[in-house]
Amino acid sequence: MPAKKTRSAPPLELRDACIVAAQEVIAERGIENLSLREVARKLGVSHQAPYKHYPSRDHLLAEVMRRCFQRFAAHLDARPRHEDPEQDLQSLGLQYLAYARENPLEYRLMFSTTWPASADQAELVRDATHAFDVLRGVLRRMHGDSPEVRETVELDALYIWSTVHGLAGVMNGQCIDSLDLKAKVLKQAVRHAMDRMGIGLAGTL
Amino acid sequence: MPAKKTRSAPPLELRDACIVAAQEVIAERGIENLSLREVARKLGVSHQAPYKHYPSRDHLLAEVMRRCFQRFAAHLDARPRHEDPEQDLQSLGLQYLAYARENPLEYRLMFSTTWPASADQAELVRDATHAFDVLRGVLRRMHGDSPEVRETVELDALYIWSTVHGLAGVMNGQCIDSLDLKAKVLKQAVRHAMDRMGIGLAGTL
Repeated sequence: MPAKKTRSAPPLELRDACIVAAQEVIAERGIENLSLREVARKLGVSHQAPYKHYPSRDHLLAEVMRRCFQRFAAHLDARPRHEDPEQDLQSLGLQYLAYARENPLEYRLMFSTTWPASADQAELVRDATHAFDVLRGVLRRMHGDSPEVRETVELDALYIWSTVHGLAGVMNGQCIDSLDLKAKVLKQAVRHAMDRMGIGLAGTL
Repeated sequence: MPAKKTRSAPPLELRDACIVAAQEVIAERGIENLSLREVARKLGVSHQAPYKHYPSRDHLLAEVMRRCFQRFAAHLDARPRHEDPEQDLQSLGLQYLAYARENPLEYRLMFSTTWPASADQAELVRDATHAFDVLRGVLRRMHGDSPEVRETVELDALYIWSTVHGLAGVMNGQCIDSLDLKAKVLKQAVRHAMDRMGIGLAGTL
């Protein structure tokens, strides 16, 4: 908690501490209960203190989400790289799934949350776009970057994102546990879907 | 509200009214704020009244979710049918996506919610399994039902479910709006992904 640390300048500490506290509020009580007042209470500071850094609850939420996208894109960038774009895409997919599995709250914040409306979203949009650009980049290496394939790159980026996003949701959700599937099937499911995805991507439409 | 109706027996009315009120609480205040007390307050009945039908908040949530799965499976069953299983799978996918788009809260309750732990889940599991069986059925018509393809049917069911679930999440989420994609790309995205999915499914692994 920031009050116990003394090394950094207090304003910076509070700014970051608000982010941590906001994620805790969301994890414990749901995003509907996120407010600057609740964050202040959690940090043991005055109700007015968070307003020094965040004009509104939506500005705080936008910054929480922006940092999620930033870490997410950095995680994707840190994947094991391959010269072959098809292999690189598989590596990207697995890296994506690992993030979703290990950071369920952050993942949900990025992709299943109502975006904060009143806050200036320019920075948030920039970091979200950067994550999508990692995927676009791999597909450009596969398809090329000529004007006639630009739409295919965009459409395939949405296709790949959808498939991997869906895999994350299905494999990390609880519904799948109710279906009484064999352990062998569950163990092969991701590999199988990624193989089918690769075949779909390589095919001629 | 139940108090204004007189035709049905009051116990049945309250049982159903609790379901409607529970969905309203979840929509307005998030699932973390769902409680039998909150449902009673919304219905203007005594705090004890909902307990006549639901021993706990988790039992009520289980029944809300079960009804979502029941309606969802009925919606899938009501798709335009095709003799050709590949066409039927496309029809099933589009029907699935329409449900997700038109019933975002119910969809989220089925696939993005922590399942109620303490409630008896047998009925909930049965209705969830029924929805999955619709997909299994189409894939069996495609692959056959011999012992050697049974695992492929299960794996492909997870693959198709993931792809369509992901499409629903990406297309109905807000992140996609931030990516500045062309209207033409957005319009083609579902068709494109479903075509790729079909190619992936038809391919030899």
